[in-house]
Amino acid sequence: MNNKLVLLITFVCLVGRSLAQDNPRPNIVVFFVDDLGWQDTSEPFYTEKTPINKSFHTPYVERLAKDAVKFTNAYATAVCTPSRISFLTGINAAHHRVTNWTHPKANTPTDNEDNLLLPPDWNINGLSPIAGIPHTVYATPFPQILKDNGYHTIHIGKAHWGAAGTPGANPLNLGFIVNVGGHSAGHPQSYYGEQNYGNIPGKASHQAVPDLMEYYGSPIFLTEALTQQAIKAIQTPIDRKTPFLLNFSNYAVHVPIQPDPRFVQRYLDQGLDANEAAYASLVEGYDKSMGDIIDFLKEQGVYDNTIIIFVSDNGGLSLHPARTNASHTQNLPLKAGKGSLYEGGIRVPLLIKGVNQKKGITRDTPVIMEDLFPTILHLANISNYTTVQPALDGQNIAELMSSKKQDAKWDKRILVWNYPNKWIPTDGPAINFFSAIRQGDYKLLYDMKNGRLELYNLTKDIGETDNLVHKMQSKTTEMSRLLAEQLRSWKAQLPTYKTTGHPVPFPDELK
Amino acid sequence: MNNKLVLLITFVCLVGRSLAQDNPRPNIVVFFVDDLGWQDTSEPFYTEKTPINKSFHTPYVERLAKDAVKFTNAYATAVCTPSRISFLTGINAAHHRVTNWTHPKANTPTDNEDNLLLPPDWNINGLSPIAGIPHTVYATPFPQILKDNGYHTIHIGKAHWGAAGTPGANPLNLGFIVNVGGHSAGHPQSYYGEQNYGNIPGKASHQAVPDLMEYYGSPIFLTEALTQQAIKAIQTPIDRKTPFLLNFSNYAVHVPIQPDPRFVQRYLDQGLDANEAAYASLVEGYDKSMGDIIDFLKEQGVYDNTIIIFVSDNGGLSLHPARTNASHTQNLPLKAGKGSLYEGGIRVPLLIKGVNQKKGITRDTPVIMEDLFPTILHLANISNYTTVQPALDGQNIAELMSSKKQDAKWDKRILVWNYPNKWIPTDGPAINFFSAIRQGDYKLLYDMKNGRLELYNLTKDIGETDNLVHKMQSKTTEMSRLLAEQLRSWKAQLPTYKTTGHPVPFPDELK
Repeated sequence: MNNKLVLLITFVCLVGRSLAQDNPRPNIVVFFVDDLGWQDTSEPFYTEKTPINKSFHTPYVERLAKDAVKFTNAYATAVCTPSRISFLTGINAAHHRVTNWTHPKANTPTDNEDNLLLPPDWNINGLSPIAGIPHTVYATPFPQILKDNGYHTIHIGKAHWGAAGTPGANPLNLGFIVNVGGHSAGHPQSYYGEQNYGNIPGKASHQAVPDLMEYYGSPIFLTEALTQQAIKAIQTPIDRKTPFLLNFSNYAVHVPIQPDPRFVQRYLDQGLDANEAAYASLVEGYDKSMGDIIDFLKEQGVYDNTIIIFVSDNGGLSLHPARTNASHTQNLPLKAGKGSLYEGGIRVPLLIKGVNQKKGITRDTPVIMEDLFPTILHLANISNYTTVQPALDGQNIAELMSSKKQDAKWDKRILVWNYPNKWIPTDGPAINFFSAIRQGDYKLLYDMKNGRLELYNLTKDIGETDNLVHKMQSKTTEMSRLLAEQLRSWKAQLPTYKTTGHPVPFPDELK
Repeated sequence: MNNKLVLLITFVCLVGRSLAQDNPRPNIVVFFVDDLGWQDTSEPFYTEKTPINKSFHTPYVERLAKDAVKFTNAYATAVCTPSRISFLTGINAAHHRVTNWTHPKANTPTDNEDNLLLPPDWNINGLSPIAGIPHTVYATPFPQILKDNGYHTIHIGKAHWGAAGTPGANPLNLGFIVNVGGHSAGHPQSYYGEQNYGNIPGKASHQAVPDLMEYYGSPIFLTEALTQQAIKAIQTPIDRKTPFLLNFSNYAVHVPIQPDPRFVQRYLDQGLDANEAAYASLVEGYDKSMGDIIDFLKEQGVYDNTIIIFVSDNGGLSLHPARTNASHTQNLPLKAGKGSLYEGGIRVPLLIKGVNQKKGITRDTPVIMEDLFPTILHLANISNYTTVQPALDGQNIAELMSSKKQDAKWDKRILVWNYPNKWIPTDGPAINFFSAIRQGDYKLLYDMKNGRLELYNLTKDIGETDNLVHKMQSKTTEMSRLLAEQLRSWKAQLPTYKTTGHPVPFPDELK
């Protein structure tokens, strides 16, 4: 063989080797926060920094925002499980029919009793990756697709995708290779290592956090324990140059509102009462987790090639006395909070840091939880995949991350919510038996129990105080038709009247 | 470029690719059974098939034996944690000082009260992969070395390597990437899915089995649930052509002796009472797990390239009433059972199927649990590794798997046990405060509490009935010296007299 040939072969083989080692597939890290309100960070998602923003201290959200696209009109559902399942499946909650939070145990409804209405026969067991499990939505979760494409898929923290007694209870059945701390429960029994996160014989509830035995009896707060586990878990794929997914959901900031001892003093010093200081300390604890994990990505040299998503699963809790101040003031300027279809219950912070993408830009296009499924797969350069769910309701929003002018289709797009359930014993504001639609500036809410509509121009009236139903009758008619058509096309479930057994009317059927 | 050149480059690159895909590193599957006695299979490990062998039905052990090397003189320690830690660290229990089983909770001794002796200050917290944790042995577990060498390392079932509140409680800290069901406890609270394996709010003990939420409320026995999890977990590395370690330890056949409903009827029909039928059903359940996993390896085409080890962590339980018949008759012809340094407590079944190795041969060379560490790494072709433990006590026994004549060194080798602990309230036979040594045909036991020695020729007297101490005084002296020297060189711990605080004499110091 001549020298030129040897050189050429060497070159070809080296190039081949280099391509195999420097995997073009980006890592994906999702900071999926629980119950974090739209105002609960020091980074403003509103047009200005509000007094609520100023009461929080989240330097790492601020830092991430500088490298990311900020979505100021991002939405989830009003409570956690529906959002979590929309995230994993790309299906809207009206369509997947897990419309309420799921009980840790199978076949256990979570609705409160209502005097007038009966919730529909919704999917009380959550998501299932196996067909034929009663009361579940059968769907392919996106982590399974990533896993099938060679990703090392890691779930850390709260799962709450399926009820115990069904396959979806276990993240390992949903496409994750590694699971630490995730099971069928929606909140921790305790954030304290001293209390074994609830795992005390004879006292453990369904919410006792699994795994983490090495922290039992220690002063390590749950938030920090799960952060350490996350960093350990991603070390393996980083060392192996395998692309990875980290879904990080460390239980904070859901009740029980227990103070994170590392951070609570700052807020007591600020003058917050013990309860609000505890809440703010949970928020800062989550922020610190995010900072530590991102610092680790930077130290390991993989930050640039990592997509990072920061999002919450529903609006901030606004119930007094769980929160200190008057109910439904915790998300101002947004109205109400978790459980409500007013903005306080469904609008959530969303940041997406891509790879080689425009940094620090803000988008006010309305986007919704189920959009993350196609967006993540697009950003991971995976286009050839199949799902058992026939079509995704979510849209790929990656194009909104570029600086080019937005396609007109986004202005016409409708977003829909359906909450035919009874979350808390007392109704309102926009809590229990509501559906809603957003298109462009406008949002229509349908109060199923009272047969009433409300229309708001969110751009002018983010606080939903000026009901335009009477001033804008044709807009009201048009939007109630759009909402009804979408609900009908998804075969969305409506509550029924206890007396007749008939469903409530669709919003375009009101007399 | 001419055609010849294109072809040549294509060829070179294809060869490179093929080498990268067909990984030469074998997979390793360890069936690490809990409390399975030397006689508790239908495959005989003795020179003949005994009545006890005949009462069990383990077709998959029999099938594996045909492809494996059978070690008829394989040893573990008398109780579980010491063995499990010797397995993971390559260190003898006298040396690693986890001489007794560890409590699920940190800093909690498990010794019973004795009237005369006080157990030493042993490593009650088990194994730690982190330095400086009180009352632990700090060591590098072999799964960590496999992981560092690119293995996908999976633990399924009972772990019991460290107490909750220490890092060793969590298999993910011991070199495993995946853990299902392993924590700090040594047995399951319940084998029944209907009882959530113990995870019932308010009733869960330290032994409630973690993970497995999808089986809660189902009729799936723990043995089967963990088998399904194992098969799912190994699918990923098989698909990715990554070598893997599966450490499969599905809790059976440890107490609680609960009938495996799939198999119990056979034994009731055989005339066993409910308790013994339940025990035999646990054994057959384990056997079925092994069959299912091996069948899966065959279906996936990876069986030939997989090393398979079948072993138990100590002798079979021989206490009445936990077992039905008179105490210490359950392992005949071996004397006594779990907890004893007589053969019934420490001799265990061991099969090793290698890759391209002599099949169906039997070896009577004495080998011991800590040998598996260097043997596994040797069989995995990993020779360049470091450990924080300065030297391994275990020997690479891979050469015993060939048909060539055995090196004389194996006849001279000594095996040592040290059990300076009080396992059960009532002493004997060879239970509580014993040490022992085996060399060649001979075994010497030292009863620390009573200051007595016993010597047996195991080849002639496997039942340890003919104490040769008086007939063979010089052999007794020599072996007590060998035992004492080894214990001294390892700084092995001895119990102390309560009255004086002085340790019991070494076996060569007896008057």
